[in-house]
Amino acid sequence: MLTPVWWEDSQLKLLDQTLLPHEERVLSLTRVEEVAEAIRRLAVRGAPAIGVAAAYGLVLGVRSASSTEALRRRFDEAYKLLLSTRPTAVNLRWALERQRRVLDRALSHLEAQDLPPKVVEALLEEAHKIREEDIQANRRLGAYGAELLPEGARVLTHCNAGALATAGYGTALGVIRAAWERGKLDKVWVDETRPLLQGARLTAWELAKEGIPYEILVDGAAGALMARGLVDAVITGADRVAANGDVANKIGTYALAVLSRRHGIPFYVALPTSTIDSQIPNGDEIPIEERDPEEVLSVAGQRVAPAGASARNYAFDVTPHELVTALITEVGVLRPPFPPSIEKALAHPEAVHRHGPESS
Amino acid sequence: MLTPVWWEDSQLKLLDQTLLPHEERVLSLTRVEEVAEAIRRLAVRGAPAIGVAAAYGLVLGVRSASSTEALRRRFDEAYKLLLSTRPTAVNLRWALERQRRVLDRALSHLEAQDLPPKVVEALLEEAHKIREEDIQANRRLGAYGAELLPEGARVLTHCNAGALATAGYGTALGVIRAAWERGKLDKVWVDETRPLLQGARLTAWELAKEGIPYEILVDGAAGALMARGLVDAVITGADRVAANGDVANKIGTYALAVLSRRHGIPFYVALPTSTIDSQIPNGDEIPIEERDPEEVLSVAGQRVAPAGASARNYAFDVTPHELVTALITEVGVLRPPFPPSIEKALAHPEAVHRHGPESS
Repeated sequence: MLTPVWWEDSQLKLLDQTLLPHEERVLSLTRVEEVAEAIRRLAVRGAPAIGVAAAYGLVLGVRSASSTEALRRRFDEAYKLLLSTRPTAVNLRWALERQRRVLDRALSHLEAQDLPPKVVEALLEEAHKIREEDIQANRRLGAYGAELLPEGARVLTHCNAGALATAGYGTALGVIRAAWERGKLDKVWVDETRPLLQGARLTAWELAKEGIPYEILVDGAAGALMARGLVDAVITGADRVAANGDVANKIGTYALAVLSRRHGIPFYVALPTSTIDSQIPNGDEIPIEERDPEEVLSVAGQRVAPAGASARNYAFDVTPHELVTALITEVGVLRPPFPPSIEKALAHPEAVHRHGPESS
Repeated sequence: MLTPVWWEDSQLKLLDQTLLPHEERVLSLTRVEEVAEAIRRLAVRGAPAIGVAAAYGLVLGVRSASSTEALRRRFDEAYKLLLSTRPTAVNLRWALERQRRVLDRALSHLEAQDLPPKVVEALLEEAHKIREEDIQANRRLGAYGAELLPEGARVLTHCNAGALATAGYGTALGVIRAAWERGKLDKVWVDETRPLLQGARLTAWELAKEGIPYEILVDGAAGALMARGLVDAVITGADRVAANGDVANKIGTYALAVLSRRHGIPFYVALPTSTIDSQIPNGDEIPIEERDPEEVLSVAGQRVAPAGASARNYAFDVTPHELVTALITEVGVLRPPFPPSIEKALAHPEAVHRHGPESS
């Protein structure tokens, strides 16, 4: 299975996504600083994949500690460093918090002399678990999502919410893969997704590998396709979902949601529940990363704008919950009104299933 | 004044827009085939500029004719060749038709022995007139449009509807220039406009030359800016406007109109009346050019998508008239309902002025 992040030979391995589709280079990281840098420069990207990479990053950060004191200090430093890399995707904080709970449990249960090696072992085990759970979550949400699509579906997606954005299989592309496996998919419309072209570079590469039919389009073309009746559903991933269902995702997602509403096309967001931030009441409070204007002013390393030009480069936008048809998660399909359906999904996930394919 | 198309030393001069902003190279054309090729490969682009170039192209096509028969034949060949270059912008056909009327008048009024040289002279004069009228139209519509903007306006525009897209001054950028000259403009948001980046390359270059403040953004970012309250008006040009007010313009325009409506932001289209095609009842009948998928799969000459990828490349989309706040023309500002206001503008232009800045 295609995966962008795994553990091998006591190293964190990342498929360098900045070089795709032209080169498949694997990075071998041994220090937490390298992990932070890889997240910052988008060698690994996508909310769930960032979470997994950060969980392993903590292991690298603490593994040479020889005392409990050093362990605590290095954990805190690594935690802070990793959390500072990117502000919008909440899976990062979520994964770091899971590791903190592992640390806290270990500190209160283990004998002092066992601590450093046992804690490293426990953190590594938790990182493996986070990774494995993410893959399973994607397979489950993919199955739920595929049920929602009509036969012969033509699905439009934005950015890359695929295997590359997760531990494997993908969220939006998980739904698309599942629909393809079930023979329900006609084709995928792939927004190229400027500025960094994750659609044209990464989503196209993933779909090509599986032989799923697709066509790339510029981000401004979705409306024209919808007006021609060529789109049956829009499915994107998410970087953070607020308690009310507002969705932060790659810049350009909001326009797709507005166009979908105008054309009566369902707008689905596929995500593991680890992407839900129940501490935040609505999208207004989601921090939106602004990235280097050069990403806009240059394309594929070549300057396109005049010398001295400036650019505004919001990496994400917020889609208000009222434009979201459903949130497709590993515990089931959440429908409006979202505050209660999200609350229930987090508190009683087993009760949500009836909306999904495994309903009784 | 900045102009992309002019006549000098018996040659048609074009500023090669494919090389901007990095290189300012002037093409000197002496054959109609060169003009057709320049239009096809977008060395000259923008509906009004294409019309002007085609008018001169006809002159080049017929000027060596030594008999009336050769004149007619070459005119028809040149007309056909030029009309075939690009399907959507109606100014092309409009300019060619003006030249045909000049030819017909000459054929019915002039003595046979005078014909070839006199006709060439008349066609050249008409081309000069078309060019000059376009500049004047832009100045007038710019003045009308500037009146519509609030003080301190932050205006978003798409593609390049500037001096480069016309004989000079520009349509959407004509309004922006006029607002700037009157001290009403705060800044311009420039959509980069994939696939060919006419915003990032051409609009940014024009604005920088005049010292008008601007920032470039990816095409997917307009909604995020509107949601933050950073956009007071959207102004685009047009490639063809149907009798009911439906607007064909650069791909991505339709999404801007839909977003503008959601946010209560006026959506203006600036155009000379030569862009109105009263023969076409609505936008469904406007032919939409599909261009080479390579324009999408590569950026600035560099391949970004995987080998074997395919793309859909509609060059234009259609914005339904109900999303258009007003059409800003050289005879005044046209408001809904558009069928009667457009009809009046074409039949009795003098009666429209009262909506504009020179009203009594």
